[in-house]
Amino acid sequence: MENSNSSIEGNNLRVRKLELSDKSKGFLELLRQLTVCDSVSDKEFEDRFKEISMYGDDHVICVIEDEISGKIIASGSVFIEKKFIRKCGKVGHIEDVVVDAGSRGMQLGKKIVGFLADHARSMGCYKVILDCSDENKMFYEKCGFKKKEIQMV
Amino acid sequence: MENSNSSIEGNNLRVRKLELSDKSKGFLELLRQLTVCDSVSDKEFEDRFKEISMYGDDHVICVIEDEISGKIIASGSVFIEKKFIRKCGKVGHIEDVVVDAGSRGMQLGKKIVGFLADHARSMGCYKVILDCSDENKMFYEKCGFKKKEIQMV
Repeated sequence: MENSNSSIEGNNLRVRKLELSDKSKGFLELLRQLTVCDSVSDKEFEDRFKEISMYGDDHVICVIEDEISGKIIASGSVFIEKKFIRKCGKVGHIEDVVVDAGSRGMQLGKKIVGFLADHARSMGCYKVILDCSDENKMFYEKCGFKKKEIQMV
Repeated sequence: MENSNSSIEGNNLRVRKLELSDKSKGFLELLRQLTVCDSVSDKEFEDRFKEISMYGDDHVICVIEDEISGKIIASGSVFIEKKFIRKCGKVGHIEDVVVDAGSRGMQLGKKIVGFLADHARSMGCYKVILDCSDENKMFYEKCGFKKKEIQMV
């Protein structure tokens, strides 16, 4: 289980939940490596942070901070969907997994996905799903995921 | 826009949000046509209904009621995910769309998806996504969706 803050052995990387101060630690610049992520004001960031925080354990954003540089170098999120099917079951949706281009090859993506999947399991989810591009399929297979359906937009 | 209750012209079908009393109108039996949907007690149903209702407009379940039979004959849900990317954008996730086997060919699925997509747009979502099987791909294409990524489980 990875649900509490944890350090990665042998280095200065800390896996933890997103904090408000992460805006000044390069969190948005990291997301920009994933997709369009325009700059937002501190107020806009804080408002969105609070909106997400209101969901508590139902929407968690995980980050990895490099404690030497003080930068956020990996991130991903999971939200818990409550259903009526499967005896009022829950499904964990993993979104926006990204690792800084300069920090690849250290299994940080796997660490993020593991943290998020563990969180979803601890919340009682009967399955955890995510959408990805064909080129990222192999990475998620290494994380234990299997291709199932297709995503429509 | 389909966000308020509406009747489908020329018949007795009403498109509206899920109500607590829909458990006795065959809502779970309908979901059983989609996937495993074990029976739950009235208390379990009510608890889950309240949990989802707490999200307000961020998690909406749409149903179509046949006012002659008093049965729920179609359903689908959408939840609004709040992100930091895309200038603190939002994404609508459509889930669990199902039409009763005896009520197919009346465009009810399209009506449900339209209601949910309209709701997501009214909430400011920059995109609406869903996962489906290969055999349902053509239906969603008719609803205006296009294949994009792959779903991993």
